[in-house]
Amino acid sequence: MQEPHPTPAPHATPAPATPTTGPAASDLLDLLATTRAIRRLRPDPVTDDELATVLFAATRAPSGSNRQPGRFLVLRDGPRARRAKQLIGEGAQAGWAQKRTTDRYDEGSGTLADSPKARMARTMERFVDTFDQTPVVVLACLARYREPRPTDGASIYPACQNLLLAARAIGLGGVMSMWHVPVEAQLRALLDIPDEVAISATITLGRPEGRHGPVRRRPLHEVVHEEGWGLPAAWAVDPPGTAYTAAGPPTGHTSHPTGQNNPPAGQSDSPKGQVGAPAG
Amino acid sequence: MQEPHPTPAPHATPAPATPTTGPAASDLLDLLATTRAIRRLRPDPVTDDELATVLFAATRAPSGSNRQPGRFLVLRDGPRARRAKQLIGEGAQAGWAQKRTTDRYDEGSGTLADSPKARMARTMERFVDTFDQTPVVVLACLARYREPRPTDGASIYPACQNLLLAARAIGLGGVMSMWHVPVEAQLRALLDIPDEVAISATITLGRPEGRHGPVRRRPLHEVVHEEGWGLPAAWAVDPPGTAYTAAGPPTGHTSHPTGQNNPPAGQSDSPKGQVGAPAG
Repeated sequence: MQEPHPTPAPHATPAPATPTTGPAASDLLDLLATTRAIRRLRPDPVTDDELATVLFAATRAPSGSNRQPGRFLVLRDGPRARRAKQLIGEGAQAGWAQKRTTDRYDEGSGTLADSPKARMARTMERFVDTFDQTPVVVLACLARYREPRPTDGASIYPACQNLLLAARAIGLGGVMSMWHVPVEAQLRALLDIPDEVAISATITLGRPEGRHGPVRRRPLHEVVHEEGWGLPAAWAVDPPGTAYTAAGPPTGHTSHPTGQNNPPAGQSDSPKGQVGAPAG
Repeated sequence: MQEPHPTPAPHATPAPATPTTGPAASDLLDLLATTRAIRRLRPDPVTDDELATVLFAATRAPSGSNRQPGRFLVLRDGPRARRAKQLIGEGAQAGWAQKRTTDRYDEGSGTLADSPKARMARTMERFVDTFDQTPVVVLACLARYREPRPTDGASIYPACQNLLLAARAIGLGGVMSMWHVPVEAQLRALLDIPDEVAISATITLGRPEGRHGPVRRRPLHEVVHEEGWGLPAAWAVDPPGTAYTAAGPPTGHTSHPTGQNNPPAGQSDSPKGQVGAPAG
């Protein structure tokens, strides 16, 4: 089964006259549009088969020159895994406490118990407080073969997205975060992660308490240009019924706000810990 | 329809007792496993609706703190678009010519016309030579709001992967590359791309001449660890029938080869220009 020799070039097969859309196109697009950050997980374990499935999907993603520098360190129930989850959770708790103040989660609508802001704060509070009970944590890593450059992420984050999409497809859920950052040195020591390996993301996985559903984003026309920067694309229209969120730098796509200009919490459906490093 | 106010926290809806896998799970997983780099495109145009579909999917991806810094500059038939494609094509031709020598595409099995290496070389030759005829080029960009950091890609490359997956779902194909790099300064001037906006990827799109199909990667057990770095995960097994490629740093996942240790061409199913900057 193993064929460790060169791969045939793609498309060596005869070309079909017309590419087919396939009957499942709408299902596939729906998957992409409804995979949202899942932070509330049930304690049930994730099976070996499920892990193999999501990691296989992760490794199907492209990488620069197909070098496949992605590595996936899975943390479940072993003693080092448990300690690692504790460590990350402690860092996340400290980071979130800071963000809660900085991003004013307890001001404005945050004082109303059922406001989106207050609900998000409760979700985040629980997420960090129970991080050590997360069924699976995957540290997505990048085995470097050259000096870091800004585009390195092109060889690991597509895999992270595939992992999350596959998880959603089989009834799991998770979120990509940077909560390893505050405790990275301790994590490296605990897990023997070599210096030349970058930790690119902390992905939590498990069975959702809630459910997946349509994500909210900025309107398409705000982020799509055609022909030149800032020029509108008339066709860049969201599907009917799309709901939006005003997250993102508030002053528009050509702005260059500093960290001090962060949008207030609650303008985001995943304000903290989804991807951004928790301590700015 | 537009609701520019805070988004409800995910999972505010009552939790179902059991998450469902859904009837389309196998289709969805198949999509992830068969979306490969498509470099041979037919000249047919991509429609407005198709573009809206793939860009909508792109923008459904997560980003740090849901800030949504991704921007997508679409290049089709306008005068600046045509000039931009020419520019990128010229850079790609020079970059590929260099790589062809450096990575020894014309040595070893590359001298056999039907070898994978020779076929890939032909595909790449054609890709760069006809780059200016690519139906659609999307420059995936990142509107920075803080100083660059290595994990910034977490807020743009998941969107690129969603874009490619959606393209595959509706019968299109493409490849993520870094071919803008050699001509970045000219591109920025031509397209008015602001300094604080990073160009993260050049994605080509169109109707495939060939077809999608199973991608080949390293065996799962080579890139998955559990409990500690380098430790095996017994469950990390590819599905039956999986074909492999030996791409990647040849000395294993804990190695740290330099650029001089690049694997020879032909060990990769997408050796140049898929993601890695063409001139290394």
